[in-house]
Amino acid sequence: MSKNNSTSKHIIILGGGFAGLWAAKELGKKGQYQVTVIDRNNYHLFQPLLYQVASAGLEPEQISYPLRGTFRKMPNVEFRMAEVTGLDLDHKALITDVGRIKYDGLIIALGSVTNFFGVPGAKKYAFSLKNAEDAIDIRNHILSCFEYAQYESDPDLRNQLLTFTVVGGGPTGIEYVGALAELVHTSLRRDFSELAKEDIKIILIEGEDEPLSGFPEKLQMYTMKKLEKLGVQGCYKQHVVQVDVDKVTLNSGEAIPTRTVIWTAGIRGNKVAERMGMPLGKAKRIITTPELNLADHPEVFVAGDIALPMDGDKLIPGPTVAPNAIQQGTLAAQNLANFFEDKELSPFSYFDKGSLATIGRSSAVVHLGKLKITGFFAWITWLIIHLLYLIGFRNRLIVLINWGFEYLLYERGVRLIMPKTKDTIPSEKTDEYDSSSIEGAALNKRSAE
Amino acid sequence: MSKNNSTSKHIIILGGGFAGLWAAKELGKKGQYQVTVIDRNNYHLFQPLLYQVASAGLEPEQISYPLRGTFRKMPNVEFRMAEVTGLDLDHKALITDVGRIKYDGLIIALGSVTNFFGVPGAKKYAFSLKNAEDAIDIRNHILSCFEYAQYESDPDLRNQLLTFTVVGGGPTGIEYVGALAELVHTSLRRDFSELAKEDIKIILIEGEDEPLSGFPEKLQMYTMKKLEKLGVQGCYKQHVVQVDVDKVTLNSGEAIPTRTVIWTAGIRGNKVAERMGMPLGKAKRIITTPELNLADHPEVFVAGDIALPMDGDKLIPGPTVAPNAIQQGTLAAQNLANFFEDKELSPFSYFDKGSLATIGRSSAVVHLGKLKITGFFAWITWLIIHLLYLIGFRNRLIVLINWGFEYLLYERGVRLIMPKTKDTIPSEKTDEYDSSSIEGAALNKRSAE
Repeated sequence: MSKNNSTSKHIIILGGGFAGLWAAKELGKKGQYQVTVIDRNNYHLFQPLLYQVASAGLEPEQISYPLRGTFRKMPNVEFRMAEVTGLDLDHKALITDVGRIKYDGLIIALGSVTNFFGVPGAKKYAFSLKNAEDAIDIRNHILSCFEYAQYESDPDLRNQLLTFTVVGGGPTGIEYVGALAELVHTSLRRDFSELAKEDIKIILIEGEDEPLSGFPEKLQMYTMKKLEKLGVQGCYKQHVVQVDVDKVTLNSGEAIPTRTVIWTAGIRGNKVAERMGMPLGKAKRIITTPELNLADHPEVFVAGDIALPMDGDKLIPGPTVAPNAIQQGTLAAQNLANFFEDKELSPFSYFDKGSLATIGRSSAVVHLGKLKITGFFAWITWLIIHLLYLIGFRNRLIVLINWGFEYLLYERGVRLIMPKTKDTIPSEKTDEYDSSSIEGAALNKRSAE
Repeated sequence: MSKNNSTSKHIIILGGGFAGLWAAKELGKKGQYQVTVIDRNNYHLFQPLLYQVASAGLEPEQISYPLRGTFRKMPNVEFRMAEVTGLDLDHKALITDVGRIKYDGLIIALGSVTNFFGVPGAKKYAFSLKNAEDAIDIRNHILSCFEYAQYESDPDLRNQLLTFTVVGGGPTGIEYVGALAELVHTSLRRDFSELAKEDIKIILIEGEDEPLSGFPEKLQMYTMKKLEKLGVQGCYKQHVVQVDVDKVTLNSGEAIPTRTVIWTAGIRGNKVAERMGMPLGKAKRIITTPELNLADHPEVFVAGDIALPMDGDKLIPGPTVAPNAIQQGTLAAQNLANFFEDKELSPFSYFDKGSLATIGRSSAVVHLGKLKITGFFAWITWLIIHLLYLIGFRNRLIVLINWGFEYLLYERGVRLIMPKTKDTIPSEKTDEYDSSSIEGAALNKRSAE
């Protein structure tokens, strides 16, 4: 193994997301450590643009970058594709599906998964939007709903197929619901010209009074108005109490008939942390010291969405967003090196570079300190920042081309049900379909669950 | 249904490949017919570039185009996503997974599937390269082989994982084996820098003396030399007698240890034709009149790979390639219209526009009448023709960018194992892996079959 040096300390970084990748970049500068990055996927996924994959605007390949490509330039960093199944803290060994791997130092950056908060049926019937497979599933599902709805003779089923609900009015929910409304009312209504605008319902369900909780009120009001203009129906001050195959039920008792529930309402720590026997806090995230390591095992650091840094009983604040993960990943790497070198560790504090969210074309909100921008300029700011953080020049170029086409032609290019990994299961109805009376009946895959 | 007119004849086109799409384009010009195109996928796939998806050079999305997008411009053509399960010829009704659909005229353009010629184990263990899912599977499999091989301690298994065989030396086999050799010896050897060139074997198995049977000898010799230069080992005058999970056995008795067998050696008619009770000839293709319709049901036409036009006992020649499918699809549409209008039908004859195949960068063979070109100019010809036939300006632009990057940087951008639809199943070995002695063991998915 040319990349390894048997006398140097071996550091394992678990996860190639923002926290893990920035930790690796930091340690890549320190040639004295031998670093192994482990991920179940062989690529880094740019999650902030995942919602555009789920709305047929971008190819999943364009927001992904091969991790090995990144590490080519770092002679002391190697990649290994593996699934982590456990951790032997006392023997400093990681347990994976391809064997035990020993370490001297460990950085856990496994990220988060969707938190369904135990709502009955949510895990089974609602879609997550956390990884590439999720986004492809959602895109394929929504396009299939339209394909089946067009020839569906049962008006109730047709209504379910053409009603799309998004749960959670945070930045992810807002960005997705805006992109979905644009996909539906531009590209898809041209593809399915028989469908009337009022046949299609797009509904945002949010527990607070307004979307984008935590943003200044001015930006919230702007967002609300923009969503309305895009044809998104807002169900505010409501939360979901149950999800079924054909409806979502709110705490008011109202049941919305739908085949599509996209759940963006919360996250929790990756489940692997439980199997590792880590000290877990709120939302199953791993409790760390202010310096981001474990109190009992100072050689183990945690960074990103899965980390819950605590100063005694007090939570050290920071949102579960990419900039926070990048800052934590970088600090965890520096602190781990300091730990090996018997230097003092620095406590983490989140440096807020601002928050931003886009709401359809030419619209966004940017909140940076006292600065609150909305509209076209905010949207351009959003575009530039996302392009800059996207990895790979080729990816940037192709994303830019896709955005250009979208902007000029009001078109989403990736309206492809591909790959077909799940069967679409038709109902037993076999209405006659002939040249004068076209009828048919089909239920989508989720009807069989 | 705004697109339908209850008094006009209803024509169903089965399949949105080259034959079906060109038939639809032809009938799109004739507004008096109401046309329904049925396909199991909602997109047209540009099969001639599929091998570049399977070799991580192109995204599958870039060689696909939404069929509804194409038919927007044709007011009398509509699309319906459905799976065909049978045909009721006497009642002129198609049986699909979403119900029966009546027709006045039918064009069957279902295409072909891989022909394994009954070789034991081939269907189970060899990969097809016929649709988007196939290509994604192959790409994911090959990248996974490298991921597992790098840490595999068993030398036999490692050798199997790093030996790649392609069966069939026709244009598809040649183009794929060339692209695979380039992927492996440029991008992947930079990603897996510990692997030596001689660790990796790429083997072409072909029954004839030379590759590209049917091409002039000069072009065959050029191809052979080019393949050798790319590091492809040729097994000529050999055919496969058995495929197992860990080897492929030739008629000479030689067994090549491998986990990867890509089967490009033959095609046969889509299996739906059997269920339809069609008259089948060689390779289960549907026997038609010289005018491309059925002798007993003149309102049913057949076009593309699935058609076997016969003049009495004599086969009407024509290769199973895109230009032939386009010519047959166009003629089938014209003849069907003539049939409705009581005009005379024209017999099919294939107009040979030439054959071409590329063999890695800057190399191709072009055969057009007496013209036989090889090398850079042939390669440029190949590039231009493929770009022109690809549908969608955005697709062309992005494919061109990918080719540019590939050419300039010797790099394949889509080295992504995505989406993960099949589990990779590790072996039970759990060798210790630490900083001084890295060992692990994993078998890929196919080991469990």
